[in-house]
Amino acid sequence: MTAENNGKGASRRAFLKGAVAAGGAVAGATMGRAAGGPDPLITETQPWATGLGEGVDATPYGMPIRFEDDVIRRNVEWLTADTISSINFTPIHALDGTITPQGCAFERHHSGAIELKKEDYRLMINGLVDRPLVFTYADLERFPRENRVYFCECAANTGMEWAGAQLNGAQFTHGMIHNMEYSGVPLRTLLAEAGLPKDLAGKWIYVEGADASSNGRSIPIDKALDDVLVAFKANGEALRKEHGYPVRLVVPGWEGNMWVKWLRRVEVTDGPVESREETSKYTDTLEDGTSRKWTWEMDAKSVITSPSPQMPITHGPGPLVITGLAWSGRGAITQVDVSIDGGKNWTIARLGAPGQRKAVSRFYLDIDWDGSELLLQSRAHDETGYVQPTKDALREIRGENSIYHNNCIQTWWVKPNGEAENVEVS
Amino acid sequence: MTAENNGKGASRRAFLKGAVAAGGAVAGATMGRAAGGPDPLITETQPWATGLGEGVDATPYGMPIRFEDDVIRRNVEWLTADTISSINFTPIHALDGTITPQGCAFERHHSGAIELKKEDYRLMINGLVDRPLVFTYADLERFPRENRVYFCECAANTGMEWAGAQLNGAQFTHGMIHNMEYSGVPLRTLLAEAGLPKDLAGKWIYVEGADASSNGRSIPIDKALDDVLVAFKANGEALRKEHGYPVRLVVPGWEGNMWVKWLRRVEVTDGPVESREETSKYTDTLEDGTSRKWTWEMDAKSVITSPSPQMPITHGPGPLVITGLAWSGRGAITQVDVSIDGGKNWTIARLGAPGQRKAVSRFYLDIDWDGSELLLQSRAHDETGYVQPTKDALREIRGENSIYHNNCIQTWWVKPNGEAENVEVS
Repeated sequence: MTAENNGKGASRRAFLKGAVAAGGAVAGATMGRAAGGPDPLITETQPWATGLGEGVDATPYGMPIRFEDDVIRRNVEWLTADTISSINFTPIHALDGTITPQGCAFERHHSGAIELKKEDYRLMINGLVDRPLVFTYADLERFPRENRVYFCECAANTGMEWAGAQLNGAQFTHGMIHNMEYSGVPLRTLLAEAGLPKDLAGKWIYVEGADASSNGRSIPIDKALDDVLVAFKANGEALRKEHGYPVRLVVPGWEGNMWVKWLRRVEVTDGPVESREETSKYTDTLEDGTSRKWTWEMDAKSVITSPSPQMPITHGPGPLVITGLAWSGRGAITQVDVSIDGGKNWTIARLGAPGQRKAVSRFYLDIDWDGSELLLQSRAHDETGYVQPTKDALREIRGENSIYHNNCIQTWWVKPNGEAENVEVS
Repeated sequence: MTAENNGKGASRRAFLKGAVAAGGAVAGATMGRAAGGPDPLITETQPWATGLGEGVDATPYGMPIRFEDDVIRRNVEWLTADTISSINFTPIHALDGTITPQGCAFERHHSGAIELKKEDYRLMINGLVDRPLVFTYADLERFPRENRVYFCECAANTGMEWAGAQLNGAQFTHGMIHNMEYSGVPLRTLLAEAGLPKDLAGKWIYVEGADASSNGRSIPIDKALDDVLVAFKANGEALRKEHGYPVRLVVPGWEGNMWVKWLRRVEVTDGPVESREETSKYTDTLEDGTSRKWTWEMDAKSVITSPSPQMPITHGPGPLVITGLAWSGRGAITQVDVSIDGGKNWTIARLGAPGQRKAVSRFYLDIDWDGSELLLQSRAHDETGYVQPTKDALREIRGENSIYHNNCIQTWWVKPNGEAENVEVS
């Protein structure tokens, strides 16, 4: 079992030679068969090539083709008492690249996804400001806008793993994340319009949504004036209902619960509110039973999306693409390492593009698989020098009773038959 | 009527002061009303805030909210004889940012959108190669992949404008374009697997699709070995049926007709095939009646998407966001100028992000509108130093009988009431 061609080492040509050799040696491992051989799909009638397809008026707004109807958000029934205050998971195992389409991007609601028309939308800015203001949606469209790609990760992503390897699939262990291009107005612009106090020391904002839960959260003023967006578009189009239509807060790099949907109010305050969502929830239980609050930033993390339990290897030995996602709330991903032996040896993976700050990076490692079992792991590095920790290292500080902020290295056990399982290695 | 705050000139603070002043002077121009005033939507019962919304199991794959059901692809009935060999248009007027969701990205079919399963998919590479090969979809997934954002523009985009201002709306004049993140295998990798001739001088490839039209096109070998991708994902997920599921060719910067969908064959040849799609179609009629062929690259171009005929200004004087898209098939966009007086004076617009090669850039110009009429134009510059030309300059060479490759500067006449029309200025 050897890992080669990490994009910096062996040349692609050498890799391809390896592929051909494997194809010649092992049945089923060919990377293309000789043309002219017996392939009924080439030689027999192909209905798609002899008839007409659908016209351009068939689907004014298109959906995925029916053959992909398993690439969907999924929830886990036993995880929550009902589906109204619950979560579902992005099918990250089946995606490639970095952008998450809105249609399959995970949802987390506290009182369900509401319908709120643009015409009915209002955003109030109040509290310690010179003049409290109420903005309509049309008002917001008149301020200078920014566009940026950011990931949004629920603080509870991978939370089940504190108690040991649980859910079998990258969608369920790591699918509380999406990565979209947002368009919106910097919050600092709206705060300036309302007029901020001269002395900002100790000031916070409290943000809440228009849904019944209101999901209020406190944010230090420095973050509010940094890169927070009042967003109305994602991946070019209007936010979907389930993503906060018509306006959500984007809090780059910070836990998803703070990205308040259906944003209705921003209050400038003298301190944090200590709301339910930042005390009894979204705090981190430690080894000694106490809890740690204000852990908003999402630490560097990564996961191999394929192969994985939902994406078994379906071919024999030979060329195999190992791929996954890496991200950090503290900046750009600078390096991802991949291990095929449970962390004993590491190879630097190839990044699909240079890391962008607070956005997801795609990584690849192209190997020549010898057909024996693999213990697949990935390990992210970010621009602060931070390196993604092992599960054991995290548990020394946090114990096993936490829910949030589990950014441990994940292990998939790939068997010789190509099937994969969620396992732990020590 | 003054244009200010181009991102390099007047400060944002100065802009905001302008906004406040305008709001004070003109009814309806406020950028936020005083909180506490009479706003029935704040003070009365809000059904979305007092009831529960939809659970996370409601939409495994989501669609846009019903309030956005006018943001769709549209076709123009009189443009083609039927909808099977026809085109529809991306609603670029209503989008922001740069990514185009697959669901509303324009379609061009020559014999309709076909359904072709991954299991039935085959790609043949034949012709002047060491060994002709046939790849299954599973084979393609085993080669090293790349991810890149590229625009795809139909050569006929803006083609109706040769004869004068015609269609009233950016969707119809410029909507034969989309911009997505593609994941796929470089074509050069597959050609290397089949083995290319030692002497590549004068060699071409001929590519065709699996649909009834086959839509064959010739591509010089240098381009084939440069940045062409055999793509199976767009914006992270599988290509939609109408975008070539399961595999399409991505030919960055070159006209969309060459981005063959349902790609079934790549033949290495001794010269161009001179197929129907590159002789009687997709050639450029000139002023003297002759036609020019092999004009594959899409020249630098831009359009203001809002305000525009489908996006009138709905507020009074004061702050106004002017925004649009710019792109070049020859590299990155380096600058976009905007004129509000029909090209007499130009202001450098703000780019949403540094230009990416062969991908769409979003630009903004935030102005303080005085309420008088505007003749809005935008002008793109790319990294080669090329500047988008006027319609008059293009017509001197091409006449008025061309169809393809019209990258002229577009003009919208915005009236004092905010409505806009497609017009020509000389």
